[in-house]
Amino acid sequence: MKVYQDEFSMSTSRRVQVIDITDRVNKVVDKSGLKDGICQILVPHATAGIILEENESGLVRDIEKKIEEMFPKGAGYEHDRIDDNANSHLASGFIGQSRILPIKDGRIVRGTWQRPMLLEFDGPRSSRRVFITVIGE
Amino acid sequence: MKVYQDEFSMSTSRRVQVIDITDRVNKVVDKSGLKDGICQILVPHATAGIILEENESGLVRDIEKKIEEMFPKGAGYEHDRIDDNANSHLASGFIGQSRILPIKDGRIVRGTWQRPMLLEFDGPRSSRRVFITVIGE
Amino acid sequence: MKVYQDEFSMSTSRRVQVIDITDRVNKVVDKSGLKDGICQILVPHATAGIILEENESGLVRDIEKKIEEMFPKGAGYEHDRIDDNANSHLASGFIGQSRILPIKDGRIVRGTWQRPMLLEFDGPRSSRRVFITVIGE
Repeated sequence: MKVYQDEFSMSTSRRVQVIDITDRVNKVVDKSGLKDGICQILVPHATAGIILEENESGLVRDIEKKIEEMFPKGAGYEHDRIDDNANSHLASGFIGQSRILPIKDGRIVRGTWQRPMLLEFDGPRSSRRVFITVIGE
Repeated sequence: MKVYQDEFSMSTSRRVQVIDITDRVNKVVDKSGLKDGICQILVPHATAGIILEENESGLVRDIEKKIEEMFPKGAGYEHDRIDDNANSHLASGFIGQSRILPIKDGRIVRGTWQRPMLLEFDGPRSSRRVFITVIGE
Repeated sequence: MKVYQDEFSMSTSRRVQVIDITDRVNKVVDKSGLKDGICQILVPHATAGIILEENESGLVRDIEKKIEEMFPKGAGYEHDRIDDNANSHLASGFIGQSRILPIKDGRIVRGTWQRPMLLEFDGPRSSRRVFITVIGE
């Protein structure tokens, strides 16, 4: 049993954005050399998130639209007096900043349409960190 | 420390459905022989989910109704042009396809009313997989 | 590799309430002596939750208000005939009763504004348990 941790950063270009990070997550799992266990994908941010979804361009726009609809910007939030992003905090906290996938035989266990995606709720940002922990044997 | 992984499949009979899987999860934890650690319950699907809830028939219907209300079918989604299930993808991604419970003294740590339930968002389906990873000692 | 588990209890004073538990979680991680791995924070309850958010008083009220808006009390739920808290169950199940953070060099990896908070959806309660599992080396 071993713990392997690694991270990468990426920039975002829009206020609300969905970015597929499957290939980068796979690379970390490969580098870990671990065969069976779990892989946690976390954004250490309170205005971003992680989701597992199909990467189809129409669905990506549906996700972005649903985020705006469920957590609308500027809807009279108290936090907006200090920092104009209460909606981003709510989306981040409620949807979640982390997802976990199993590792088996050196590969992530996931459905065909279940790809790790970074959710940006308060972009554009020059650097969003993705922190990965693989625990296994 | 050891990793133990197992899976089972089940069919679903309705479009939106909540199915208690507590007994099947307990069996996997028993078979693992592990005493202390965590147990991850994942559906490797992008139109299903996992939730921890009380298994009371009225509440089960409330959950199903809430899913339909928060993620209504056919609400003008772009993904529906390709595959008529954008609502199922959104419910799955936002609510989540996995939950994790601790294991202590060989038993799952959970509240009395906190039972692992499979969420079907796009049924009926002949085979929904539940993949379980137990990590512990 | 080792598993360390500990728990603490706290009372809540309002029906819907957000309580910062960062300091208490940090203490458990310190006591574990583990340097690298993950830390799962779980409430073994089906009417409470865990969220990672900024502890700013305006935002805390925004979170409480959003919970009431997304999961309103007494909205004709079937479960309310038995126990008057279907809304609390729905909030708990959908938002989630657990969050996981990585541990690196003996410290929790988290964003500056990403603090573990207990969510009370059905208070006041004299005792809400927080169960923590640290797995690592």
